[in-house]
Amino acid sequence: MRHFEYFSQEEVQRVHEASLKVLEETGLDFGYEPAVAVLREAGCRVEGKRVFFPPKLVEEMIAKAPAEFTLYGRNPDKNVVIGGDNIAYIPCYGSPIVTDLDRGRRESIFEDYKNFVKLSYASKVLDITGGMMAEPGDLPNDRRNAEMMYASMKYSDKPFMGGATNGAAAKETIEMASLVFGGEQELAKKPRFISILCSLTPLSYDESMLGAIMEYARAGMPQLISSLSIAGATAPVTMEGTLVVQNAEILAGIVLTQIIRPGTPVVYSGSSSNAAMRYGTLSIGSPENAVNVAATAQMARFYSLPCRGGGTLTDSKSPDAQAGLESMMSHLMATVAGVNFVLHSAGILEGYLVSSYEKFIIDDEICGMCKRIKKGEQITAENLAIDVIDQVGPGGEYLTNAHTFRNFRQSFYQPEMESRENYDTWKKNGSLTYDQVANRKWKEILEKYVEPSLPEESEKALQDYIADKYGR
Amino acid sequence: MRHFEYFSQEEVQRVHEASLKVLEETGLDFGYEPAVAVLREAGCRVEGKRVFFPPKLVEEMIAKAPAEFTLYGRNPDKNVVIGGDNIAYIPCYGSPIVTDLDRGRRESIFEDYKNFVKLSYASKVLDITGGMMAEPGDLPNDRRNAEMMYASMKYSDKPFMGGATNGAAAKETIEMASLVFGGEQELAKKPRFISILCSLTPLSYDESMLGAIMEYARAGMPQLISSLSIAGATAPVTMEGTLVVQNAEILAGIVLTQIIRPGTPVVYSGSSSNAAMRYGTLSIGSPENAVNVAATAQMARFYSLPCRGGGTLTDSKSPDAQAGLESMMSHLMATVAGVNFVLHSAGILEGYLVSSYEKFIIDDEICGMCKRIKKGEQITAENLAIDVIDQVGPGGEYLTNAHTFRNFRQSFYQPEMESRENYDTWKKNGSLTYDQVANRKWKEILEKYVEPSLPEESEKALQDYIADKYGR
Repeated sequence: MRHFEYFSQEEVQRVHEASLKVLEETGLDFGYEPAVAVLREAGCRVEGKRVFFPPKLVEEMIAKAPAEFTLYGRNPDKNVVIGGDNIAYIPCYGSPIVTDLDRGRRESIFEDYKNFVKLSYASKVLDITGGMMAEPGDLPNDRRNAEMMYASMKYSDKPFMGGATNGAAAKETIEMASLVFGGEQELAKKPRFISILCSLTPLSYDESMLGAIMEYARAGMPQLISSLSIAGATAPVTMEGTLVVQNAEILAGIVLTQIIRPGTPVVYSGSSSNAAMRYGTLSIGSPENAVNVAATAQMARFYSLPCRGGGTLTDSKSPDAQAGLESMMSHLMATVAGVNFVLHSAGILEGYLVSSYEKFIIDDEICGMCKRIKKGEQITAENLAIDVIDQVGPGGEYLTNAHTFRNFRQSFYQPEMESRENYDTWKKNGSLTYDQVANRKWKEILEKYVEPSLPEESEKALQDYIADKYGR
Repeated sequence: MRHFEYFSQEEVQRVHEASLKVLEETGLDFGYEPAVAVLREAGCRVEGKRVFFPPKLVEEMIAKAPAEFTLYGRNPDKNVVIGGDNIAYIPCYGSPIVTDLDRGRRESIFEDYKNFVKLSYASKVLDITGGMMAEPGDLPNDRRNAEMMYASMKYSDKPFMGGATNGAAAKETIEMASLVFGGEQELAKKPRFISILCSLTPLSYDESMLGAIMEYARAGMPQLISSLSIAGATAPVTMEGTLVVQNAEILAGIVLTQIIRPGTPVVYSGSSSNAAMRYGTLSIGSPENAVNVAATAQMARFYSLPCRGGGTLTDSKSPDAQAGLESMMSHLMATVAGVNFVLHSAGILEGYLVSSYEKFIIDDEICGMCKRIKKGEQITAENLAIDVIDQVGPGGEYLTNAHTFRNFRQSFYQPEMESRENYDTWKKNGSLTYDQVANRKWKEILEKYVEPSLPEESEKALQDYIADKYGR
């Protein structure tokens, strides 16, 4: 499959040049002195916390980041290549609230986080277990990151998302993963997790994020350098102007990582969208969001960097038609535009506020469908099937043809729960809407879940680490 | 916006060559002797009703069809260009069943048809009024086409879909439109309607459709030459093989139109999808459908013909999350792939079986969102807004900036009913799901509907025509 190009190459070049101008003349605020020092040392002009980037430095540093890298699963069958023509799906991230049809909307607890790890592990299409898929509100604040990382390694054997709240969480995540995966140097060679570090839009980075970026960069750990600029609020109301702000923020962050450790794997990560002007709030279910997904993919390709964008994003309050259509809009756009890393590929409701059990399962189907589209088509003699067409002829049928038996499994996506039966069958089975089907399914998956057990010594090492630091 | 190209040009060329081979060596059945005679006369080899097409004839005739044409509205502000970089949205077509949340699922009647004409007329994004949006089951069979055409001209001033069940319906539609729009010659100069004529897949055309194709072609009336091949049932199980069957069917139909009247406006119309193997029925909510949309757009571009594909298509039985996500998948794909004519852009449920009032309104929002994406972005100094970014600087805000006031209306899509408010506001307003919001909205639109009155003499002429033919 070829990529959808929303802009011409010349237009992309102009966005790049505008961003360089902003980086050089407007500058960004870096709220963490060690980061400012590193940038000053590398040749940036500095005024207080304001850092101005020479275009040459930006282009040189961006060129040092790899175009592609691998995240390694505890189970090697689940290694994931990030970049190139690949696409990886990663579930929701950062919601303080969960909801499901049985228990309703409520503050999330650690049990919810563990459930989402299990659902991610069981999914055939999610590639990486999420981080902070539901904030464990019932755990003490300082203990949360360690418990989530432990759960991510214990209940799943896929690569996972690392802690990213600040430098300490980054350090802790590295230390814990080192216990399981053979130490820090081994981790740098075969990274097991990736973390998301965000700008403070517009045109700033705060102390916490810079601490984490620097900690991870020093250890050579992969990171998403991410901007969520909001058109009309933290960026110009035009999607072009927002793209410039987003691009400047991402490039500035990536430059920092590459100065600290050239070759550190980074993902060019843009999730900008627009303000709902009537409410002054962020909208992520808007067509402008989809436009930004396409634009972000093109900018990342321009820099030969892996790209993050999109997700099954919605502003809806329930897993209804709005949730479905908005989620597919952003997700399909990411798929055709050539995005490599789709965070928030399952579970999101209400902007980024809520993780929904039913939506998680619905989105899993969206991921499956989009992966099928992404797989593309091969124009071969077997697939064109001219001789079969000739043999069947006008008015014939293909259902019983050998060619059909030979090819239908790889040709067709096998839906997990999509309703394709006729109305009477659907009615006989209870007239279930999609959210009700999803409700049955997530409970069934959790019931059948079997833990991909950690080696005993890893399990003990992680438990001891947490106990030493935070008590049993 | 540039177009998404799923295949390389070389792959498209190979599909074309495979189709020519099928047209020349396998041939198609034409179940109507006058059509066979025309094709024989033009140089096709004929065996009974089987017609074999010389490649040179196919290529010559395809080249005669225009790349672009205009459909004229009774209101000239509503003229629609079909082809080029334009996209037109047309509502559901052909459903024998309607449903809404109040009255449930039932056989459709003429009142439903009229309501859908009114909803189409009121829509800001639907360009053409549908034909047979709901079969008027309460009217005598022979009277239905005339009543629907009358209603299409009376209750809306947009271009409309013509009757297409057979040659008589085609003739009747031309005669009725002639009464309103200045006669047949004037109609050929400024076409007011377009009709959909379908192959009998695989590789056949039946008497009814051929009668209508020939009737319309003689009068120079625009038509969609359409194939709905079903992968695994009426075509090979591979989407490539299905594309070959679809392409051969469409090309054969277009060849016939161009022999009859060179330059007749036609739309290359592909709506193929795959069989749900578990049930042996058509699935239109599948990712394979979306693949075919992208492929169809590329084939049409290869022939420099306007393209039809996609729609807000779903297999769901209710306007739920499945309906939303499937509808957006097909519709967004049509939008990015460069489709020009999207039939079934509003209302479809259960394959093509049901027209839903709520789904109609939900799909109207999908159309609005996709039109926003299609509008594209202009990389201008005003839009890049570097000076505004510099002026606001790091940590600033754009909500109160003059640039925001100046641009937000044209920059952002203004949703009709999408929920973007916060949870508490949503709850206070009744916790409505999207289908419930849509339910309120269609009733409100019908209540507020004002008829774009026909000139009195046109109205009388149409009434007399129907009365003369079918009684009062």
